[in-house]
Amino acid sequence: MAQSKHTGRRPGESGTREAIATAARQQFAQLGYDRTSMRSVAEQAGVDPSLVSHFFGSKQQLFVAVIELPFDPAIILPAILEGERSQAGERLVRFVLAALDQPEAGARFTAMIRSATSEPEAARLLRELVTTRLMAPIAEGLEADDAPLRAALAGSQIVGLVMARQIVGFAALAEADPETLVSALAPTLQRYLTGSLG
Amino acid sequence: MAQSKHTGRRPGESGTREAIATAARQQFAQLGYDRTSMRSVAEQAGVDPSLVSHFFGSKQQLFVAVIELPFDPAIILPAILEGERSQAGERLVRFVLAALDQPEAGARFTAMIRSATSEPEAARLLRELVTTRLMAPIAEGLEADDAPLRAALAGSQIVGLVMARQIVGFAALAEADPETLVSALAPTLQRYLTGSLG
Repeated sequence: MAQSKHTGRRPGESGTREAIATAARQQFAQLGYDRTSMRSVAEQAGVDPSLVSHFFGSKQQLFVAVIELPFDPAIILPAILEGERSQAGERLVRFVLAALDQPEAGARFTAMIRSATSEPEAARLLRELVTTRLMAPIAEGLEADDAPLRAALAGSQIVGLVMARQIVGFAALAEADPETLVSALAPTLQRYLTGSLG
Repeated sequence: MAQSKHTGRRPGESGTREAIATAARQQFAQLGYDRTSMRSVAEQAGVDPSLVSHFFGSKQQLFVAVIELPFDPAIILPAILEGERSQAGERLVRFVLAALDQPEAGARFTAMIRSATSEPEAARLLRELVTTRLMAPIAEGLEADDAPLRAALAGSQIVGLVMARQIVGFAALAEADPETLVSALAPTLQRYLTGSLG
């Protein structure tokens, strides 16, 4: 950490902060908001509990700091919008399944949905993710009518997939191979985004 | 309570038990499992906290006792399976929306899904509801191949609808009128139950 001489930071500070963030992300994903505590995060990160509040403040502030969006909309949106319009649903479900398979992005996604059932701040983040940051720009980019409803419908299926497959553990979904899920779910998302809803 | 003379029950016992059950159902639905306590249930029911454990035992036992299935499969299954096979998806979504609109059934449904994110016993109940008691018999009754996958897919959309509309509060779903939701969701459930998944 030669840099610490110049910045005035204590050696290891950013490593400690990152260890706390990683432990917090894992616990929010596996235990949900209410069963994660500042103390349990400190224990898993191997640091003194006072350091958790030193770096992050309250538990709610810790949650908001470590559970940002699990992806960058500036990269994802063009990737889903470019190409055949009739394949946008398939590109979206492939993106969701790939995100769930990445340890950090998957933990953030699961943590956000799991925590949204008890913690209003997590519910707000999830609404923002779905309505403002991801699904609404996709629905608008595809130039269908009634983009807010389309975004919410597609979001409901994605949230339901994560709940059923990752959190509640419906065996047939947890065990299905990804291509089976793509074939099953892509037409649903495609119809919600661009098809007839009437 | 003339009956109490014969049964040996204390007068008002069943009323007290029911008041506790109603308060518990409401709190599990609104707060989730972790934020519901024996004490908060007692307070809302207007009884001494010791009565909650007297009647129900532990918090987990209280949950299982008051959050039974929010409907009777013996009545629901024939109602969804009878009639045009091509309309089964519509009958299912109408049943779900009607259940969510009934105060007690709606509270049980929401409580089960909200609590399933943190409490394994609630997750088990939700899996049983979806896979064993409701969706699997429907999928089997419709005589489609791969009933377990079909049941899990339909269940994922129903769970996602409850999450998005009732728990996380996606505005476009919360504000949509029921017929709009029926039109949007029925084709999804129909395809999951009887259509091509490949």
